[in-house]
Amino acid sequence: MVLSRNFTSDNVTPASPAIMAALAAANQDRVPSYGGDAHTARLQTVVAEIFETEVTVFPVATGTAANALALAQLAPPYGGVYCYESAHIVTDECGAPEFFTGGAKMLGLPASDGKIAPAALAAAIETALDMGVHHVKPAALSLTQATEWGTVYSAGEIGALAAVAHAHGLPVHMDGARFANALAQLGCSPAAATWQNGVDVLSLGATKNGALCAEAVVFFGAASRAADFQHRRKQGGHLWSKMRFLSAQLLAYFENDLWLANARQANATAAALAQGLRAVPDAQILQSVDANEVFVALPEAVVVHLEREGFGFYRWPVPAPVAGVAIRLVTSYATTSADVAAFVAAAALSSG
Amino acid sequence: MVLSRNFTSDNVTPASPAIMAALAAANQDRVPSYGGDAHTARLQTVVAEIFETEVTVFPVATGTAANALALAQLAPPYGGVYCYESAHIVTDECGAPEFFTGGAKMLGLPASDGKIAPAALAAAIETALDMGVHHVKPAALSLTQATEWGTVYSAGEIGALAAVAHAHGLPVHMDGARFANALAQLGCSPAAATWQNGVDVLSLGATKNGALCAEAVVFFGAASRAADFQHRRKQGGHLWSKMRFLSAQLLAYFENDLWLANARQANATAAALAQGLRAVPDAQILQSVDANEVFVALPEAVVVHLEREGFGFYRWPVPAPVAGVAIRLVTSYATTSADVAAFVAAAALSSG
Amino acid sequence: MVLSRNFTSDNVTPASPAIMAALAAANQDRVPSYGGDAHTARLQTVVAEIFETEVTVFPVATGTAANALALAQLAPPYGGVYCYESAHIVTDECGAPEFFTGGAKMLGLPASDGKIAPAALAAAIETALDMGVHHVKPAALSLTQATEWGTVYSAGEIGALAAVAHAHGLPVHMDGARFANALAQLGCSPAAATWQNGVDVLSLGATKNGALCAEAVVFFGAASRAADFQHRRKQGGHLWSKMRFLSAQLLAYFENDLWLANARQANATAAALAQGLRAVPDAQILQSVDANEVFVALPEAVVVHLEREGFGFYRWPVPAPVAGVAIRLVTSYATTSADVAAFVAAAALSSG
Amino acid sequence: MVLSRNFTSDNVTPASPAIMAALAAANQDRVPSYGGDAHTARLQTVVAEIFETEVTVFPVATGTAANALALAQLAPPYGGVYCYESAHIVTDECGAPEFFTGGAKMLGLPASDGKIAPAALAAAIETALDMGVHHVKPAALSLTQATEWGTVYSAGEIGALAAVAHAHGLPVHMDGARFANALAQLGCSPAAATWQNGVDVLSLGATKNGALCAEAVVFFGAASRAADFQHRRKQGGHLWSKMRFLSAQLLAYFENDLWLANARQANATAAALAQGLRAVPDAQILQSVDANEVFVALPEAVVVHLEREGFGFYRWPVPAPVAGVAIRLVTSYATTSADVAAFVAAAALSSG
Repeated sequence: MVLSRNFTSDNVTPASPAIMAALAAANQDRVPSYGGDAHTARLQTVVAEIFETEVTVFPVATGTAANALALAQLAPPYGGVYCYESAHIVTDECGAPEFFTGGAKMLGLPASDGKIAPAALAAAIETALDMGVHHVKPAALSLTQATEWGTVYSAGEIGALAAVAHAHGLPVHMDGARFANALAQLGCSPAAATWQNGVDVLSLGATKNGALCAEAVVFFGAASRAADFQHRRKQGGHLWSKMRFLSAQLLAYFENDLWLANARQANATAAALAQGLRAVPDAQILQSVDANEVFVALPEAVVVHLEREGFGFYRWPVPAPVAGVAIRLVTSYATTSADVAAFVAAAALSSG
Repeated sequence: MVLSRNFTSDNVTPASPAIMAALAAANQDRVPSYGGDAHTARLQTVVAEIFETEVTVFPVATGTAANALALAQLAPPYGGVYCYESAHIVTDECGAPEFFTGGAKMLGLPASDGKIAPAALAAAIETALDMGVHHVKPAALSLTQATEWGTVYSAGEIGALAAVAHAHGLPVHMDGARFANALAQLGCSPAAATWQNGVDVLSLGATKNGALCAEAVVFFGAASRAADFQHRRKQGGHLWSKMRFLSAQLLAYFENDLWLANARQANATAAALAQGLRAVPDAQILQSVDANEVFVALPEAVVVHLEREGFGFYRWPVPAPVAGVAIRLVTSYATTSADVAAFVAAAALSSG
Repeated sequence: MVLSRNFTSDNVTPASPAIMAALAAANQDRVPSYGGDAHTARLQTVVAEIFETEVTVFPVATGTAANALALAQLAPPYGGVYCYESAHIVTDECGAPEFFTGGAKMLGLPASDGKIAPAALAAAIETALDMGVHHVKPAALSLTQATEWGTVYSAGEIGALAAVAHAHGLPVHMDGARFANALAQLGCSPAAATWQNGVDVLSLGATKNGALCAEAVVFFGAASRAADFQHRRKQGGHLWSKMRFLSAQLLAYFENDLWLANARQANATAAALAQGLRAVPDAQILQSVDANEVFVALPEAVVVHLEREGFGFYRWPVPAPVAGVAIRLVTSYATTSADVAAFVAAAALSSG
Repeated sequence: MVLSRNFTSDNVTPASPAIMAALAAANQDRVPSYGGDAHTARLQTVVAEIFETEVTVFPVATGTAANALALAQLAPPYGGVYCYESAHIVTDECGAPEFFTGGAKMLGLPASDGKIAPAALAAAIETALDMGVHHVKPAALSLTQATEWGTVYSAGEIGALAAVAHAHGLPVHMDGARFANALAQLGCSPAAATWQNGVDVLSLGATKNGALCAEAVVFFGAASRAADFQHRRKQGGHLWSKMRFLSAQLLAYFENDLWLANARQANATAAALAQGLRAVPDAQILQSVDANEVFVALPEAVVVHLEREGFGFYRWPVPAPVAGVAIRLVTSYATTSADVAAFVAAAALSSG
């Protein structure tokens, strides 16, 4: 497909130039392995400053690793993790959370727009507690931010969910594969988007937003929460010997607010895409476009035309029936206004 | 420490320039994620050519991941993996093989120089079979090449061990974290060093020998041996979305025989180091220096002097008593003749 | 509570006298441990005769063990097991299947009466296959017979589901915690109820139907299907040293058709209970009463009255709204007509 | 073989009459399942009285389950459990501890008579700590009492080992498959044999010493140590629905000191056996006969004669070379003086 027409995912992108430059700059000298290097040390400081609190940061190479390792820190093998029923950890990680926890269950809650409701969470926990030893033990809450439907929890929504979880002794994990996109939308501080509203552990993604391969598990607060996590990461095969090359990516990601600049570009092009598609006859935008994903129903003929024109995207199953065909469009830091315009034009043309 | 004085490990090195260049070259365009890219496709072809047989290749980022995933493919939770009792998979991977297999046991066999003896292997398997259901089921053999003692199995030695394993239905895994070093020493073809002598699966390391973060699990023969391995890798969090960046490293590693050139430099400097140290009074080289590691016993005063001079290395526990202190010295593709000369001179001086 | 008023479950019962007698009879002499005894050998023969085919039988002490071990034989850690979304393996085994498989997912399908529909199964498998490596790999189908709603799959229904599973290469497991109750209802041969209609492995329960603690995992067909299952059972801590005491229970269970006699009594009293309750004003029987469970909605006041009178049962969450309160009543081989009459009378009285 | 000639193991025995009687007595009425019954409640009290402290007791059916579940409570997947290198948990449980812990390593220490030395334990822990994240994290100490060599740790020896473990923050597990035999030999209180000398969790065996199928995991001290253990047991498939039948066995085991009476008979017949064999020419008793096992080296011809005469025992591999053939003889509560006399006579005769 013509490259600028690829809206399949934000992980088809190359890495940002600043991140490639940081890799090259880190490629000097012999340095201590396994995280004993200066880049990794500095990363702790930088992340603490960004989040305005004590943190313990563990770089890893994939989002699945970040999520699964974080959940293994929170949930025992006989535990249950509450999440959206179509969360990435449920449907797209090939059972990684179950594997890393040694058997814990992902307990999916329904949600029309990817956002769990506090009442549904509370009810589910109480049902589980009633069932006693026969049911897995409620162990954690995991929220995806931005959600799998491209929506974004407000800080208040996060706080309300975390309050329910904490009231039952459950820690809160955030799958932030697209955390920067959410943050750019919220406009609040990273602290307000996380620990100030009850998030205990964050899987902070960078790969989809400009890195080559870099995510970080960030524990907020006392280091004891992260106790033994380094053993867990090592046992999972996720401790790099040449750790500097992970840490350097993340340092560059935060430097000069690259992460926010990249996210804003992705969000803005998604918004423009939605805006353009709203003018296409019979198009229906299916969710609030809060981040960098657009779910839109289009007439079958339009979708076929777009596919023939070489635009890349997925036909997407949606819970409620729609007129036409639902598709998912993902923008990224690399998406341009011209890319958007071309797509909208093709949709409009074929619809006419 | 002065960088050129760092003999602690071959993983303290930067990446080879050719590998960094390959990363930069791969950083173009939007391409399919999760291994659907052209680099990953080409890697299959290149590795098949190098090994002169059908292969299925899975790039991953760490050696621990390569070993643990490969062993999980071979051994069930109730299985036993025969290996050297101080193998990396036993002592240095924080239980990753047990974790990924879901409980299999690493059954360590003694060996004076890191090389298991066929008779010891046969005896251990037969004892296990006698114990029936109470003992883990013999499931696989894992050999490290080059070994943890810097020695190298000859092709014949590998064949003899593999014959014992195969006679009992056990597949053979090779932990080739330093496979290039071994191959450079053997001088035989990659095929002869592996599948032609019974190796079924190879963890092929590149990180210690010039890559940034790249290893590959290579299955020899029919693709059925690798059945479902892609699910296993994904569930372990080891499937990169931007896979091209792993594959590009490995392509550059093989291109122009970079892997062998790098390995030869490491081996040659290790040989020179051993040669130089043999002239130091009371120095005793403890093993055959076949690859890029030198184990040497030196008088305590010499070791202390070297440490004070800023040379980096580990004091190393050795099975048999030695006069003085045993240390491990590791060379790499980045080690120069001058580095070696400086070390030997410092040792000789302090010994005088 | 008065004992005859206990309708909470069929596992609150004592053991049948014939089973206790068998235990006493087996308590003679020193015999080989771990299943090398004559009772265990004879059990293989007896079960093969009952099912009219080659079988491999593994006695264990709990139904959770039987199910979890059987599923571990069928599904890899990265596998998915299709089942009813409120199946016992999903909601009542504290994650045992996930634990024993090392991470497999129970993929729950909706069903109004506990019986999965072939079309829903086929659609789910195909969706999973479309998602490739990101989704767990379809690995097995598990049916509960009798179901969690006290309904019974007909032989034809089993065959139709098994056909879908087999068409995709998935083996079929049957959770037969109440298999005898189902068989008594079906009136067909044990063979027709299982392998002749595609069941590959059966968890055959005896504990709820008269045993003290005995279930059996039964593999139909070539012994290779059960390969290594004895290691799996041992590793799970489920291999008894004094195995004769498990096998003797199962032998007594089958002797003189005790299992069917017990199941018929349980089924008949459930039918009588349903029949009696249908005459109670505002009572609504919620499911087809095929085995030994009755789900009934009663006016709140009636339920409270029954509770106060010391009748034991659970208020039960049901998917669709009902008038009044839904409760579950379970009968057993120990339930008498008088027990039923007393319950119905109390319900009728309070309703008047 | 003639039954009285079976010295293969103490698990070939039937159950004590008092235990069978207790089962029959418990077989009354419908009672709450899953441990909500009166027998299970009373067991907590009885065990607390016997051990003179607060306890939390979990009955299970096998010793492998008791050990593996107890260790899973103490050691994380990335943990190491120190034990004797030929401990039952290492060699005879088919990897159950690795499976239930999710990957922990059993770290075997050498010992000439089955008893670990405190200095060896301390050295091993310190080596592990030096290796940091690459090595599994020291997590627990497990002692077998009586040991696999039929020897018994004194209370002081236990205290010394526990002190080393506790000094490094490691809890202490005791595999008491033959705890009654050890206790009978020690002559001290159950408290002194366990928690007063640092044991935190005990796998207390009854099956080998008169029960049908009953073991108990006993946590000493605050109930928090046993937190969630009931979920762990359930997930392992080890929670019986008809729990009364496990608890009743254990109650009968403790009543009237049946456990000690049985153990004394086993120990006394072992002592008599050793005493008798010492008079046989060329016989060599290989270990201190502290409990109910005799390891003896006999001339090959004698061993062959005994085998031909129908005596049951295992030829046993022993670490140091012996003259003749080493065999293991196990006595039990069911062994009589006549059984012993017959064996000794046959050995003496053939040796003449």
